[in-house]
Order: sequence, then C-alpha cells, then structure tokens
Amino acid sequence: MDAATVRPPEALEKYRSVLDETMRAIVPQEPRGLYDMLRYHLGWVDEKGAPVEGASAGKALRPTLCFLTCEALGAPCAHAATAAATLELVHNFSLVHDDIQDGDKERRGRPTVWSLWGVGRGVWAGNAMRVVADRALASGSPPMAQRKQAALLLTRAYLEMIEGQYQDLEFEGRGEITTGEYLEMISRKTGALILCAVELGAMAAEWDGRDGGALRLWGIHLGRAFQVRDDILGIWGNPTVTGKPIGNDIRRKKKTFPVVLAYERAQGAAKHALLEAYGSPELSEAQVERVLDVLEELEVGTASQALVERETEQALESLQRVGPLLFPWAHGQMVQLTEFLAHRDR
Amino acid sequence: MDAATVRPPEALEKYRSVLDETMRAIVPQEPRGLYDMLRYHLGWVDEKGAPVEGASAGKALRPTLCFLTCEALGAPCAHAATAAATLELVHNFSLVHDDIQDGDKERRGRPTVWSLWGVGRGVWAGNAMRVVADRALASGSPPMAQRKQAALLLTRAYLEMIEGQYQDLEFEGRGEITTGEYLEMISRKTGALILCAVELGAMAAEWDGRDGGALRLWGIHLGRAFQVRDDILGIWGNPTVTGKPIGNDIRRKKKTFPVVLAYERAQGAAKHALLEAYGSPELSEAQVERVLDVLEELEVGTASQALVERETEQALESLQRVGPLLFPWAHGQMVQLTEFLAHRDR
Repeated sequence: MDAATVRPPEALEKYRSVLDETMRAIVPQEPRGLYDMLRYHLGWVDEKGAPVEGASAGKALRPTLCFLTCEALGAPCAHAATAAATLELVHNFSLVHDDIQDGDKERRGRPTVWSLWGVGRGVWAGNAMRVVADRALASGSPPMAQRKQAALLLTRAYLEMIEGQYQDLEFEGRGEITTGEYLEMISRKTGALILCAVELGAMAAEWDGRDGGALRLWGIHLGRAFQVRDDILGIWGNPTVTGKPIGNDIRRKKKTFPVVLAYERAQGAAKHALLEAYGSPELSEAQVERVLDVLEELEVGTASQALVERETEQALESLQRVGPLLFPWAHGQMVQLTEFLAHRDR
Repeated sequence: MDAATVRPPEALEKYRSVLDETMRAIVPQEPRGLYDMLRYHLGWVDEKGAPVEGASAGKALRPTLCFLTCEALGAPCAHAATAAATLELVHNFSLVHDDIQDGDKERRGRPTVWSLWGVGRGVWAGNAMRVVADRALASGSPPMAQRKQAALLLTRAYLEMIEGQYQDLEFEGRGEITTGEYLEMISRKTGALILCAVELGAMAAEWDGRDGGALRLWGIHLGRAFQVRDDILGIWGNPTVTGKPIGNDIRRKKKTFPVVLAYERAQGAAKHALLEAYGSPELSEAQVERVLDVLEELEVGTASQALVERETEQALESLQRVGPLLFPWAHGQMVQLTEFLAHRDR
C-alpha cells in the first residue's frame, strides 16, 4: 500500500467547522495584544491582528480523534466539542514553546510567534494558550464529575508530554540512545496527548469501558505509528509536499527514529560518519549527504516504515476487537484514519 | 512607623516546615534531569542535584496567607497544606518564566534556571512546575466539589497573572502609562495570586463567606500595597539588605510605580530627562543618577509610600470588620503581616 492508495478520511474535514467555532469562543478577545498572538499562531489573523483566510491550521488530528471516538460510541459529536478544542489548544501551547526551544523561525509557512514578538512574549503566549484551554475544559459542558475526571486526564497527559519533551532534549546531548528508549520517549512526548484525545472522546460519550481497553490500545499504537511516520517524513518527505528539503531533520540534528536505529546498526566507517556528523556543532551539506548515504546503506528507512506498519496493524487489530460496539460509519473512518496516518506524505 | 519598628510576624516562619514537606512530596523524583531543575530553583539542591542547606527560598508570602486564613477561620492549618504548596509552586512557575522574559541571570543570589540549562529547558522546567502544582490541587485532600472549585479559582488567578505579565511587557514598550493603568496591571500580575491565596485558605476551612467579602478585600489591598512596596525597594532598597544596588529597577528600565508617577508629574527638563533615559536602549550610570534625581525632585518615593500606607489602612479596616469572626492569634498575625509588608526592607 502506498500514499497514492490511501485517501484522507472525511473525518479529518468533517469536524473542522465545529472545532473552529468552539476554539474561537474559547480564546478571549482582550487584552488584544496577548490574544492576537494566539490567534496568529492558530492561523486566524495576520501579525497585525487582521483576519486572514486559508492560513494552514494543521491536521487537527487530536480533536478529530476525540470527535470520532465520541461519535463511534453513539453520542453526538457536539458532546466532544469542548474537549476537542481543549486538546487542539494544548497541542498548540506545546508548539509555541517547542518553537522557542528549537529556535525555529517558521511554522506552517509563517514566522513563529517568538520570532515576531520575542521570546518573553512567546513564553507567555504559550502559557495563555494552555490556561484558556484548562479553563474551557473545567467550565465546559460535561457534568461536574466528568469535568473533574477530564481535567485529571488532561493534566496527566501534559505532564507526560512535558517529561517527554525534556527527555527529547536530553537525547540531543547524548551519544547513543536505544530504539527502546526512543519509543518510550515518544509515547510520552506525542503519544500521551493522542491517547488522551481518545479517552476524552470516550468520556464525552459517557462510555462504560466495556471494550476491555481496546480503544486505549488503538490510541497507543496509533500515536507511535504517527510519530515514526513523522520522523520518516522529516528526513525523506517529498519537498514539494512538505515544503522542507530532503534531510531536513538531519540538518537540524534531530535524533529521530531512523537516526537512532542507524546508530544501533552502524559499524566501522558508517558509525564513524554518524559520530562525526552529530559531534559537529553544525552539519555541513556534505555531512548531511553522508548521513543520508549511511541511512540508505543501513536500510533504516525501510525498517522505520516496517515499524509504522507493525504499529498500524496492532492499532487495526484493537479496532477490530472493539468494532462490534461501534457505529459503522465511525468505525470505518477510524480504520481509514489509521491507515492514512501510516502512509500520509505530509 | 519605620522598618525598625515592624518585626516580621511569626506566621512567616510557622508554616515553613509543613509547606516544605508538602512541596517536596509534590515534586516528582523522575526523570531526575527535569525535576532537579525545579528542585534547584526551589533552593533544595545545587546545580548538580546535590542537596543544599540554607539556600534562600523566598518569603513564601502566598502560602503563608493561605495557611493563616485557614487557621483564622477555625480549621487546622494542615487542611490548607496542598493549596498552599500549589500556590508557591505556581508562583515559582511564573518566576522561572519571568527570568527568561527579563533575561535575568541571577535570582536569590544564585544563577537562574535558564542561565544554567538554556532557554528551552527553562521553559519546560517552568511548565513542569505548573503542571505538578495543578495535579496536586486536583488530587489533593479537599472534598471533590471543593477541589473542582479550587482548581477553577487557581486557573482564573493565573490567567489574570499571565494577562498582567503581558500588560507589563507592553508598558515597557510604551511611553506614557497612567498610574491607574499601572495599578490595574499589578492587581492582575501580582494581586490575582495573592487574592487566590486568601480564597483558597478560606475554602480549605470550608468558610461560608459570612464576612460579606471583607477577607477578599483584605487580600486585594494587601496585594496592591505589597507590589508598590516592592517597587519602592527595587529603586531605593538598602543594597546591604536587598543585595542589589540603588536604582536597580531603573538600570533595568522597569516602569514601576514610582517611575510611572514621575512621568505623570514631570514637566520641562525633568520630563525631558525621563524621556531621554527611557528612550535609550541602555541607561548609562549618569542617566540612572539623573533619573534618581528627578524622582527625588518630584517626591515620588514619598508619594509611593503614601499609596502603600493608604492600601495598608484599607486592608486593616477590612481585617477589623471580619475580626470578630476570626481566631484572635491568627487575626493578630494577619494585622502584623499587613503592617510588616508595608514597611519591610527586603
């Protein structure tokens, strides 16, 4: 199966308008300077605060998972709107702070918040994004006991996310990381919020949990497949589709799964080339080329996609187990989304 | 009344050990790298993670207010321990991010977190500080309905805090700010969390609110007096006590209350000197001296302290109104604390 055969599921579009509406109701208007930074990051306004149309707003994967899970379990998607919007805001809080951490000047084809307004304001913009999300979830529509439970789930998820972010930073400064350590890290950094999206969707549907945990397993495997596919695209993604050159994550010295695997497999000259490249303060273009050659020789691209496929299969198995309990349309969308994420080209 | 006549109330020491114990139980052990940054900031370990004794941990004003309010309303202080520890952690979250925003390399006589570990790790250390605080409050000792209410109060408080931080940054880039705008800003930046400390203390004591809001008024006036006294110390504090040179906040181009008032009052040469100094990218020592002279001429130091006294009087009046409902020892401590904060020299 390749990219051409897997179309994006309609679910990725279906919830956009309700998500957008809910998010816009959550982000306050005043003080404008502060919240215009949030609106800018979310693609709603330009850097002067004037409304814009068609700025890329990302895939909205987490809210889609939340809405879809809620509908699959028989509740109207509106029940999940606050949780879905909260998840997207929390995800964007982490992106605003990520960009500061990585010194990235561009995201989704536009200057990043910190690069326009400085690190200080960027830090507070990220903080504001998270607090308005917290407040929305705490005062939103579900009944009291559920809101409390939802807030706890979300808090746990972003504590894991923060711990994962930190581990990721640690790894950059370390020579050898095992693939096991790497997978453990991404299960926190990326996986925790994706799993939380499924959990909050189920909670919004007042799900009784009688699938024996199969939905959670779906979320766990999906999260892992998603991140490793991301890692693959970060190195070999088609530049005309991703807008980034081949070898981009190598140039940025990101130790993503293919590189970690290459470290594990490399010996002799290949190992030497890796150590030399990642030991340099900055990689020359020749070094980037050399690393790409080493990854090719060691076939880590193929091996990485094989891992994506295995995780995807396990996600699909979990879905199959819970299938009889789900509404057929939503179940079909979940299957299609799972396959799409494993083979997407952006 | 001057500094020498107002001793610090014993309440500022009384709760230290229970606060310390509660905070240490809240901050996780693993991953060590991440949480050692928090422990370092909190003065428990050195930069290598080895335990230290006697590092300055700050005044712990917010937890003290929380404990004291709880006890004053007839409940044991232990009921307020989680809320008090949460407040201190949230306050420290804002300090970690403040230091990044201001580029400050030193706090309480030690290098700041970001200056030791970089901006990226510093941002995540601050985030982790807030999340562990959130989690503690959400899963701590008060009954369920109260935890929920407490979480909402805290969320509202730090949303205000963040909005205030942002306004403060905006003011630095603006020429004229009115004293009214300034006081509104500090009621958010500093006042919100101080008021929240009183509210959480009352909630921990299951207070029925029959003081007609007098306790909240105490918190509001206290917060304002506290910040303006801080502003005074930031300019004229005794260097041997504060560890900072005279005119420190002027050198840092901080537009605190005395400077805002001077802008309002200044005319002619004095106004010119202010505009010139604050229009420079960096102030020369001669400019700092000139600004100090202008502040002296315009008697803004005296006027600033007069505002502190007025706010303190209003705080004391509120306390007097609620006095008959309070336990006498705690009431006495609240009075003494209010007077102490207005005249403290550090």
